Amino acid sequence: MIPRYSRPEMTAIWSPENKFRIWFEIEAHATDAQAELGIVPKEAAKAVWERGGFEVERIDEIEREVKHDVIAFLTSLAEHVGDEARFVHQGMTSSDVLDTCLAVQLTQAADILLADIDALLAALKQRALEHKMTVKVGRSHGIHAEPTTFGVTLATFYAEFARNRERLVQARRDVGTCAISGAVGTFANIDPRVEEHVAEKLGLTVEPVSTQVIPRDRHAMFFATLGVIASSVERLATEIRHLQRTEVLEAEEYFSPGQKGSSAMPHKRNPVLTENLTGLARYVRAQVIPAMENVALWHERDISHSSVERMIGPDVTVTLDFALMRLANVVGNLVVYPERMKANLERLGGLIHSQRVLLALTQGGVSREDAYRLVQRNAMKVWEADGKADLLALLKADPEVSAAVSAERLEAMFDLEYHLKHVDTIFARVFGES
Amino acid sequence: MIPRYSRPEMTAIWSPENKFRIWFEIEAHATDAQAELGIVPKEAAKAVWERGGFEVERIDEIEREVKHDVIAFLTSLAEHVGDEARFVHQGMTSSDVLDTCLAVQLTQAADILLADIDALLAALKQRALEHKMTVKVGRSHGIHAEPTTFGVTLATFYAEFARNRERLVQARRDVGTCAISGAVGTFANIDPRVEEHVAEKLGLTVEPVSTQVIPRDRHAMFFATLGVIASSVERLATEIRHLQRTEVLEAEEYFSPGQKGSSAMPHKRNPVLTENLTGLARYVRAQVIPAMENVALWHERDISHSSVERMIGPDVTVTLDFALMRLANVVGNLVVYPERMKANLERLGGLIHSQRVLLALTQGGVSREDAYRLVQRNAMKVWEADGKADLLALLKADPEVSAAVSAERLEAMFDLEYHLKHVDTIFARVFGES
Amino acid sequence: MIPRYSRPEMTAIWSPENKFRIWFEIEAHATDAQAELGIVPKEAAKAVWERGGFEVERIDEIEREVKHDVIAFLTSLAEHVGDEARFVHQGMTSSDVLDTCLAVQLTQAADILLADIDALLAALKQRALEHKMTVKVGRSHGIHAEPTTFGVTLATFYAEFARNRERLVQARRDVGTCAISGAVGTFANIDPRVEEHVAEKLGLTVEPVSTQVIPRDRHAMFFATLGVIASSVERLATEIRHLQRTEVLEAEEYFSPGQKGSSAMPHKRNPVLTENLTGLARYVRAQVIPAMENVALWHERDISHSSVERMIGPDVTVTLDFALMRLANVVGNLVVYPERMKANLERLGGLIHSQRVLLALTQGGVSREDAYRLVQRNAMKVWEADGKADLLALLKADPEVSAAVSAERLEAMFDLEYHLKHVDTIFARVFGES
Amino acid sequence: MIPRYSRPEMTAIWSPENKFRIWFEIEAHATDAQAELGIVPKEAAKAVWERGGFEVERIDEIEREVKHDVIAFLTSLAEHVGDEARFVHQGMTSSDVLDTCLAVQLTQAADILLADIDALLAALKQRALEHKMTVKVGRSHGIHAEPTTFGVTLATFYAEFARNRERLVQARRDVGTCAISGAVGTFANIDPRVEEHVAEKLGLTVEPVSTQVIPRDRHAMFFATLGVIASSVERLATEIRHLQRTEVLEAEEYFSPGQKGSSAMPHKRNPVLTENLTGLARYVRAQVIPAMENVALWHERDISHSSVERMIGPDVTVTLDFALMRLANVVGNLVVYPERMKANLERLGGLIHSQRVLLALTQGGVSREDAYRLVQRNAMKVWEADGKADLLALLKADPEVSAAVSAERLEAMFDLEYHLKHVDTIFARVFGES
Repeated sequence: MIPRYSRPEMTAIWSPENKFRIWFEIEAHATDAQAELGIVPKEAAKAVWERGGFEVERIDEIEREVKHDVIAFLTSLAEHVGDEARFVHQGMTSSDVLDTCLAVQLTQAADILLADIDALLAALKQRALEHKMTVKVGRSHGIHAEPTTFGVTLATFYAEFARNRERLVQARRDVGTCAISGAVGTFANIDPRVEEHVAEKLGLTVEPVSTQVIPRDRHAMFFATLGVIASSVERLATEIRHLQRTEVLEAEEYFSPGQKGSSAMPHKRNPVLTENLTGLARYVRAQVIPAMENVALWHERDISHSSVERMIGPDVTVTLDFALMRLANVVGNLVVYPERMKANLERLGGLIHSQRVLLALTQGGVSREDAYRLVQRNAMKVWEADGKADLLALLKADPEVSAAVSAERLEAMFDLEYHLKHVDTIFARVFGES
Repeated sequence: MIPRYSRPEMTAIWSPENKFRIWFEIEAHATDAQAELGIVPKEAAKAVWERGGFEVERIDEIEREVKHDVIAFLTSLAEHVGDEARFVHQGMTSSDVLDTCLAVQLTQAADILLADIDALLAALKQRALEHKMTVKVGRSHGIHAEPTTFGVTLATFYAEFARNRERLVQARRDVGTCAISGAVGTFANIDPRVEEHVAEKLGLTVEPVSTQVIPRDRHAMFFATLGVIASSVERLATEIRHLQRTEVLEAEEYFSPGQKGSSAMPHKRNPVLTENLTGLARYVRAQVIPAMENVALWHERDISHSSVERMIGPDVTVTLDFALMRLANVVGNLVVYPERMKANLERLGGLIHSQRVLLALTQGGVSREDAYRLVQRNAMKVWEADGKADLLALLKADPEVSAAVSAERLEAMFDLEYHLKHVDTIFARVFGES
Repeated sequence: MIPRYSRPEMTAIWSPENKFRIWFEIEAHATDAQAELGIVPKEAAKAVWERGGFEVERIDEIEREVKHDVIAFLTSLAEHVGDEARFVHQGMTSSDVLDTCLAVQLTQAADILLADIDALLAALKQRALEHKMTVKVGRSHGIHAEPTTFGVTLATFYAEFARNRERLVQARRDVGTCAISGAVGTFANIDPRVEEHVAEKLGLTVEPVSTQVIPRDRHAMFFATLGVIASSVERLATEIRHLQRTEVLEAEEYFSPGQKGSSAMPHKRNPVLTENLTGLARYVRAQVIPAMENVALWHERDISHSSVERMIGPDVTVTLDFALMRLANVVGNLVVYPERMKANLERLGGLIHSQRVLLALTQGGVSREDAYRLVQRNAMKVWEADGKADLLALLKADPEVSAAVSAERLEAMFDLEYHLKHVDTIFARVFGES
Repeated sequence: MIPRYSRPEMTAIWSPENKFRIWFEIEAHATDAQAELGIVPKEAAKAVWERGGFEVERIDEIEREVKHDVIAFLTSLAEHVGDEARFVHQGMTSSDVLDTCLAVQLTQAADILLADIDALLAALKQRALEHKMTVKVGRSHGIHAEPTTFGVTLATFYAEFARNRERLVQARRDVGTCAISGAVGTFANIDPRVEEHVAEKLGLTVEPVSTQVIPRDRHAMFFATLGVIASSVERLATEIRHLQRTEVLEAEEYFSPGQKGSSAMPHKRNPVLTENLTGLARYVRAQVIPAMENVALWHERDISHSSVERMIGPDVTVTLDFALMRLANVVGNLVVYPERMKANLERLGGLIHSQRVLLALTQGGVSREDAYRLVQRNAMKVWEADGKADLLALLKADPEVSAAVSAERLEAMFDLEYHLKHVDTIFARVFGES
């Protein structure tokens, strides 16, 4: 995570202010519950809410001395609350605060990421509807295959990010648990009802059984899900990079007046945003591995996960947030060239209709083997002529072909509309409307 | 995946026989649907089911020539079916067969893995109930913290694998889709109702929009989920390895009569199974990265994912299946030493009760700061005496302590039962019963 | 590692026969040294070489019983050698055999990989010389930049694989050590001179200090190096995939007569080999992570690395060997289309010369800022005309441009030869000749 | 990379000041060379050195407008240099500056890391010599094996980090190249002698052939090497964590007076530094994957690597620097408990001598099989008595044993000195002295 690839909404989640604010709420709600249970005086709970507060600088100062962040926070809090502060944090362990806080931060981050995906979905849907019938060639292996539409292409990304949205909702639920269970998770010094109260107040669920910490399989699953989302970002970014290649140029990132593509070559307009997104995806994805390595903590916990999370927590959420919003903008502003799509489609002298001719031949009684051979030998001539030859003409002139399929039927095989008849079906499946 | 770490149930899924059997079913069901729609003769569909068949060797032989596995399969099939075979596969593309087959194989694999997890859950539950009240020390940072029970420890693993089970159910659903949509996913040459029919017959859902292939975010999510499960395997394996250390020896892998721990040192009994599981977990986890790299295929597809999946499909499912069953056996046969647990617990002269003394002091009016200092200075003496000193005696003799808390109350702070009072709560949360 | 992506030379290294043959040599050489030192009878050493032998099936049979592979091997060996066999393996530990054997296998594998790289380097050099002056456009960001030659492109890969060769030589040296140091590496029961003797006989160096095992940072470095080589494989594969794209088609994988590119579309010729290599590279690269996780073994060793190595040892070396040889063949047989290279180069109406015009303008006294603006505004017109406009003509017609640079000088800026003047320099640097 | 885990020396390398200072030097040296070649006026080169300068804030300001960092820098530079500035950067491309700068930064970082390793090596050597003969038990699989010394253990780490040092020297050389070759690496607009001059001045070697960029296999190798070093950090950290476990407690991280191990449990002294290092190692290691994914840039370059490097460049070097220095301190200040080492060694009633008894029996004429059985059956009794039984006494009392080996000889087998006789050999190998 670096400022260059950060948005303030997400970095704010990882600010000391937000962290200590959440710590404060955890401690205050826990004191409430303790008071309700008669463990601590009701006045103490009231005092925390009324007089409680903290200053980041003061906490830092204390931490430099005691080398323990939660103790530093509690000391600072006590300076505001006064004597009743000694009832705060009673029976709790630092991890109760730290892990529950991380759960809150990760759900806050998930909420922003969900909003990002919504923005991206909106952009994809708008552009998909706009280009529902913008015909272009479909490519497998980078080679022209058969016609499709740019709207269908965008629909595949819409469907993919809709799945990612569901996965993220799931991962948010998985990671959003509260643990207030004491030093080794036995509730020896704190009633389980405190945990239930804090969980409810913070919008979390109760961790059924914790050790000292919330189990890290939850976090591994969360980061793995973000890794999958990043991989989808890469797929869409790669698609656009391909479409912008000089020889293809079917779409282009928006290039503002006055922008410079290259310091040396004034003619350049490069897909730098999507190339950038490709890199960001690599970065986000890589953090899945340490998140998984964090699962196998020793016994009731060791603290090896902590340094990893201090880094990848902000790194991954901030970078992915930035990437998703950048991608939503790229899609929204993408310059599309339908004429180039059409020109490219027609580039290969009708080769894209080879399958239909094959089917016509088999329906005309030719064996699959022979039909394949007949079409292939004519198609290869078109390849070799670099698209300057015309498949239909060659087929008509091939006596073996014309013996099986009439010229009229052959012509019918080259109808573009044929390929578009189920676009409505696909759109209905993906967008729930025809 | 190597025979050493394989079970036949799972390797069978990846056998040529199973693969071609699924291919056959896809083609036969698709031909049925085509016949129902009037695209191909009903006799053709009937012929496929009645006369259809294949031989693995024959397919291999043909593939060596045509260098295309699906064409080889169809040729072999045609040798059985005869002339009607030309109606098979009509309008379909190889990926329709390959990707739908992979979806079936991965759901089959998921079913075995779910059964494995069930076996592991059963073993964990049985041993947890057995040792519900077997007291042992809880350790944070590898250092004695406070008492817990071995049953609670096992309950944390039960809860973790129960979560993993849910995640796998989800991942199975995610990856279990059927695509029969033709060369670039437009259904140009095949009616979407064929896809719907095949999906239903094979227990899959319909892929809303495919390109030539089923989108690989689904597979990435599947393998990421298996990576998380492998990480949980590592956590449980690591726990057992720790418990078996010579100095700890609270539990031990079953060691059969006649077994040899070391070729050189006849006295050795090593936790080799759980060390092995640690390695297997590393292997499974690593495959998440290429699975994620597979997502960003070019345009309507490239085939870079295929070689990866041919390897990690079997590798990951076979190895994880083996690991889960090995782990279930290790847990089921684990030799537990409650006396050693008790002995270790008492090893440190009562240090494990330091928090309660701290709380008693604060309740006795001492500030948190001072209370900490008082307990710590006595605790450090016990550390330095290597557990030969007694914390309770030291505290009683410390005038500052005894001024705040009576000897009687101090003694009450060293009660072991105090730590066990919520074990029932935890078990009720985890196992749904008290 | 699967048969589909394997070559027999490399798989042979990982066969039981080769492994046990190496074990035999280790034991026999060690017994020789022991005899020389007077620890065991000279007859024993002689008997091992003369009567020694093993059968894989017999070893498997014994291992099923004793569950220890080295003990099983020694038992089988004893069945051949007779009574003197009791002097074999004296003072050694299983890991002395296993780890030294792995070192031999990895150096054998490295030798094959070095030969593979040599084959690839030879193919790259031959094609580079062939196309030293085959002009094509250089592309940054997938966008036409400036002219280069296909030979220069191939030279970059030659240089990269030459670096990889050096790295592999280094990694081979790093991993090729012999340890015969006993149960915890102290040589308590075996003289260090035995280790020295075995190392020398097997072409290894002595491990300066082992625990029970050879330290795994060596293996991590080895697999990391293979991961880098795999990444270079991906770069070359990706380059070829790009060149074969329909719209680019400057080069093509060899497509044999009778080959079928697609079961459905007879016109297809797909870069399937290089796509396949892209996937193989992902697979090889991913194994770097578990190899690094293997480093932190507990104390004098745990066995968690073993299962990983049993899998990734063959997986990585076999797959990378296959990939390198496949790549050498692809390069050797690559069909190159110089005319298409030329046609693509000219596609953009001279935009590729924009930098030279920029320099001419600044040399003509125009500020860099203004010069950039002048060139860019004319270049953008060519972009918008999809290459149908001509940059030179536009510049000549631009009064601000012609005020600074004469038409004659402008024309000179569009000279292709200008870009080729240092190709000799580059070739001399890379291939050591001009 | 976060401030918590950063040292100012290393972060300074990644500061804008350092970066722009390097850019300035590259441009100034390049202008010198251009002047020497007569391409630009000598006054221009002089002016750059004399009047040249930049302000970070001003560059940022310009970049916000032109969205191109190198152009922003050059504009700022021109504001200082004046008119002659137009001769700066002539014929160069942004990547010439960026990539050569990164090479300088990575070699600067490598120099700090080498110094870190030296500090660690010094600490390891000092403690190894100090504890050369401090006897402790060697453990395989976490189980007591045979005696070794703590000095030997430290020597293994010394040897490992000495290897890492060599690897880093290699990686530094690999990554330290200079490229000034223009837009697609053909030197069309810049003489190769400029590159040679700049390389020499900056202490780099010449990149034999670049595209637009320095090939990323160099960087992948660099980060892979740091990943291996991080894995060694993890091994040493893990060793110390194990030694500090309550039940083992043979060594302990230094715990300062006034430090608090736990907010809740005043008795705790936790190995938090080495647990932290374990996490940092995971983080550093994970970045190897995106560094490898960066290799396969498209054609003459795409910019996907850039965002990754902007993050992992600082992340990895800063974090590893911090980790190495923390580790050097931990080793230097490690509190070692030789008495506990001795006590643990003796804990198992002499089991650690089982191999020698085995050898004595075979030398006494007993078959290896029988000897194993005889020792194992007595050893198991000691295990079961939890070390309260005595192996020597049991063996003496076993008639089958005493028939083959005399009591006197049995006693000799339990001699501790026997295991230490080659410690000198090992130290001579590792430290080059006896």
